[in-house]
Amino acid sequence: MKYHRLNQEDIHYLTEVIGMESTFVGEQIEKDFSHDELQTVSAYPEIHLLAQDKYQISKVMKYAHEKTIPVTVRGSGTGLVGACVPLHGGILLDVSKMNKIIELDKTNLTLRVEPGVLLMDIYEHVEKENLFYAPDPGEKSATIGGNISTNAGGMRAIKYGVTRDWIRGLEVVLPDGDIVTLGGKVVKNSTGYGLKDLIIGSEGTLAVIVEATLKLIPKPKKSVSLLVPFKSREDAIAAAPRLINEHVLPTALEFLEKQSLQYSETFLGKKIPHNDYEAYLLISYDGHNEQAIEEDIEIASSLCVNQYNALDVFLVDTEERRKSVWTVRGGFLEAIKASTSEIDECDVVLPRSNIGAFLNYVRKVSEDLNIRIPYFGHVGDGNLHIYFCKDDLDDAVWKEKLKVGFHALYEKAFSFGGLVSGEHGIGFAKREYMKKQLGEKQLMIMRGIKASFDPKHILNPGKVI
Amino acid sequence: MKYHRLNQEDIHYLTEVIGMESTFVGEQIEKDFSHDELQTVSAYPEIHLLAQDKYQISKVMKYAHEKTIPVTVRGSGTGLVGACVPLHGGILLDVSKMNKIIELDKTNLTLRVEPGVLLMDIYEHVEKENLFYAPDPGEKSATIGGNISTNAGGMRAIKYGVTRDWIRGLEVVLPDGDIVTLGGKVVKNSTGYGLKDLIIGSEGTLAVIVEATLKLIPKPKKSVSLLVPFKSREDAIAAAPRLINEHVLPTALEFLEKQSLQYSETFLGKKIPHNDYEAYLLISYDGHNEQAIEEDIEIASSLCVNQYNALDVFLVDTEERRKSVWTVRGGFLEAIKASTSEIDECDVVLPRSNIGAFLNYVRKVSEDLNIRIPYFGHVGDGNLHIYFCKDDLDDAVWKEKLKVGFHALYEKAFSFGGLVSGEHGIGFAKREYMKKQLGEKQLMIMRGIKASFDPKHILNPGKVI
Repeated sequence: MKYHRLNQEDIHYLTEVIGMESTFVGEQIEKDFSHDELQTVSAYPEIHLLAQDKYQISKVMKYAHEKTIPVTVRGSGTGLVGACVPLHGGILLDVSKMNKIIELDKTNLTLRVEPGVLLMDIYEHVEKENLFYAPDPGEKSATIGGNISTNAGGMRAIKYGVTRDWIRGLEVVLPDGDIVTLGGKVVKNSTGYGLKDLIIGSEGTLAVIVEATLKLIPKPKKSVSLLVPFKSREDAIAAAPRLINEHVLPTALEFLEKQSLQYSETFLGKKIPHNDYEAYLLISYDGHNEQAIEEDIEIASSLCVNQYNALDVFLVDTEERRKSVWTVRGGFLEAIKASTSEIDECDVVLPRSNIGAFLNYVRKVSEDLNIRIPYFGHVGDGNLHIYFCKDDLDDAVWKEKLKVGFHALYEKAFSFGGLVSGEHGIGFAKREYMKKQLGEKQLMIMRGIKASFDPKHILNPGKVI
Repeated sequence: MKYHRLNQEDIHYLTEVIGMESTFVGEQIEKDFSHDELQTVSAYPEIHLLAQDKYQISKVMKYAHEKTIPVTVRGSGTGLVGACVPLHGGILLDVSKMNKIIELDKTNLTLRVEPGVLLMDIYEHVEKENLFYAPDPGEKSATIGGNISTNAGGMRAIKYGVTRDWIRGLEVVLPDGDIVTLGGKVVKNSTGYGLKDLIIGSEGTLAVIVEATLKLIPKPKKSVSLLVPFKSREDAIAAAPRLINEHVLPTALEFLEKQSLQYSETFLGKKIPHNDYEAYLLISYDGHNEQAIEEDIEIASSLCVNQYNALDVFLVDTEERRKSVWTVRGGFLEAIKASTSEIDECDVVLPRSNIGAFLNYVRKVSEDLNIRIPYFGHVGDGNLHIYFCKDDLDDAVWKEKLKVGFHALYEKAFSFGGLVSGEHGIGFAKREYMKKQLGEKQLMIMRGIKASFDPKHILNPGKVI
């Protein structure tokens, strides 16, 4: 696709639409807007627009469509696969200032939000009303628009599902500027093809999300976590599926090893209690009835200790303990990033029965390639986050090891029934592996879908497909 | 699209693929296979094939694609909108004999099934292992393939979501015969466009489902229902959202009126206890802890009685009572069908806050048109089932009243933020209303998607789009 380069006339028009103070060109464009969180790819847009409402976005898209100008949508830029990087220049359509919470509807249990609202602000807004938005991705300063675009998962997916399960409706601007509504405040929908569900997870390549209607539920009155140290990594991993299929679903089930814990503690400068064991499960239960949760804890503890050689069971029940444990767990990615010069990541998701064998393979690859590969994972839902660390390798060696290592891990994951991405998406970085996994036929269909929405390929070119 | 009519050579080839005893042509084709449950539209196929496995289906599709022969997939034929009726003749691809349960995986909590497995057989198979497949559409003799194709909802949607939320993976045969796998035994997936979620709810127009991987959870140990009679319909309907947003989510929340109850009792020849009130809520709670459920019951009862003038609260706790109440509730559609010469239905879904006002309008339309319109509904999820009864009207008057009445109801539903179909789909019968609601732009995108999967438009022509 040959794209139009912006000239003075274009810049003038776009500035008129968005306003001088929200339009940035040339040197005014800050470096931050040329990359995402992981910085594995970078490119500057020709213009950076801070949109204020959907009507502006509609005008921008209509213009871009007429002129064949590429448009890349950006929220907080916390992505890890380069999806918000304007590879082909053009317009960077920044929705971070469209951060209004439009309506909390307590009867229909829905929350209408603009796309730039941060995840942490959603929690705050609904929880004070005793309501609950369950998806819990690690990065709380991500925007809801970004969460929807990657179909973000998070730690509570095992019990509550992923972002897709919590989106009742979307309003989107199509590539030609038309505004359409998909779904609504309704619990069920069998009205034609699932366009809403198609846009969820499409990483800004099909339409621009300008409003979302989220599903809410009553907030569980109580939530308790257990930190359970195990004699061996194998025991911890083997206990996980049993904790899921023998009783109620835990709210979260995370696997930690001493090493990641130490990185995180060092990075954050704070320690968690009971930090000197090899491997841990961090298990949460929530609900409305205290006795029911006590029963859950009882059953889980006895299973871990009696059948999987758990060394102890620490109740994370005070606010202070909860904060320290979950802060350290939440700090893993930042800590690993801070421990080295550069990282790249693999976000595979596997049937949970294969987690143990796969992690053995990860350690083997780490040894074979002589490269540090820390990892952590949502062992409850089979989604692992695996980080290759550059440390003091020179560029060429690093690139080569990454290539060989990624290839090995994805091939192994596929053989285990795994998929390329559990929650971070494909973006720019994982296209090759997705293609390998899904094959030409599925890609052809995806390209057809892309063309149905965006015949001129102006939305986020170079991503996903 | 001009379709090829089957000649002797085609029939010979298809008979070779499927086997003589599973191939029916001409007079051999039974009348049942020319319509669905509601019989609002009918057409015979040129050939009726009882497929035994996916390889046969792949061969049939490859052949149909080459020759441009229309193919309509059929499960149990329990649909209500004509989706399984072969409007353009061609091949009726019957998957009802592909009814094997392939694998129950207790570690990953998944069930792999062929598309012809009946819903009731799934429940039986997993519940004896203390596992649970939560979607609960009224028609238990529907196939899982049909449930997936309409994104069926059911009575437990309020707590557990709809079919889409319970499908981890699909294997499908594309219109040209290629077999592809979408998703798998994984909890999360952000690997490219959501093709699995697009095929769910596409009513057999995009691909032929040949295998599904269902999500399971541990079976709740206890489940209790309450039958709560109210002084007025308004009170019952007003209580519903409060029951949902003030405490835990009920498993089901159904609204019944005396009239539907009486139809069903007459039809089934059995009575439910406490059947002489004007309006009822039927409320269920489930969970793993007895005391927690008792607390739920306590809270719900006191809310109904103290704030919404409920006249009593009957605990449906014995197996006998449970059976009688849910059988009568489950018999509504059959009973209404049996009460008249012909029916047609409206399956709107609304924000639950608008149910009361909408049902007032339904009664007004019934009076204005002087036509009987019984209804019942999942008041918890906003999905209503509204039945126009022909009784002794002559054909022309019936058709006219249907047209005026449907038009009025859908327009009102749209104005309330409702959608054409909550769970029965669009099929043939509801296309006009879907078009009205979604507009030309969304239809154009859907047609583009259709063409990406099925460029020769051989799969289920005349349906949905």
